Amino acid sequence: MALGKDYVTQECSIARALEVVGERWTLLVVRDAIYGVRRYNDFLVHLGIPRAVLSARLRTLTEEGILEKRRYQENPPRDEYVVTERGAALWPVLRALGHWGREHVDAHRLRSFRHADCGGDVEPYGKCAACGTLVPVADVV
Amino acid sequence: MALGKDYVTQECSIARALEVVGERWTLLVVRDAIYGVRRYNDFLVHLGIPRAVLSARLRTLTEEGILEKRRYQENPPRDEYVVTERGAALWPVLRALGHWGREHVDAHRLRSFRHADCGGDVEPYGKCAACGTLVPVADVV
Repeated sequence: MALGKDYVTQECSIARALEVVGERWTLLVVRDAIYGVRRYNDFLVHLGIPRAVLSARLRTLTEEGILEKRRYQENPPRDEYVVTERGAALWPVLRALGHWGREHVDAHRLRSFRHADCGGDVEPYGKCAACGTLVPVADVV
Repeated sequence: MALGKDYVTQECSIARALEVVGERWTLLVVRDAIYGVRRYNDFLVHLGIPRAVLSARLRTLTEEGILEKRRYQENPPRDEYVVTERGAALWPVLRALGHWGREHVDAHRLRSFRHADCGGDVEPYGKCAACGTLVPVADVV
């Protein structure tokens, strides 16, 4: 198969981006940082991940210049993590993932719930889109 | 911290997209499929990943409707994997990752090689951008 130079270039930069941000949880930490989360405990609560994983991700992201560590309190010493320009440049990746998630995961999952009596789609709050009944859990297929 | 409903919506669709395509190698398999790779052995050669990992990723991607398995030979039976519309919709994610990789990983790495004698950037093939010398490895800093 001859895929040509463009392919090789493309291949390399996608793969190299994923080498940096492709580990589990990394992009979710970046997402939170872009939304303004800065402190260790806030990341911990938002993401609900083990401390060891969060610490490892924050360390890597700081080393890679995606987050910047800033001392916000001296006694006891406390740091916060602020997204850099390089980190903020990941926003289009997150936006594209969010868009795909809405169009192709959420929609897919909703389609998989139907009202047994009439075959209508069950809406997010449990009403049948076809007949308007509030579908009892036992009638959801 | 009050992040509001938009945050929650955004958060969920990014996280759910990553639940589907956030595992190591998954997006690289999708990238190859979008570029026209269809057969098991071609994926194997291009990606250089263990068979067990490739098989697991192809299975998940097929279950998620991102790839579609098609029989292309009956005797012996052989299948190929064709990207679906849902899979092709991941292209903006890959394009954004590739763009970020070019701007923020490749550039970053190149900047870290300099010619000791004059301080010029060392270009990909080893020439100094400032003085034009083919820089001996010993003079790269």
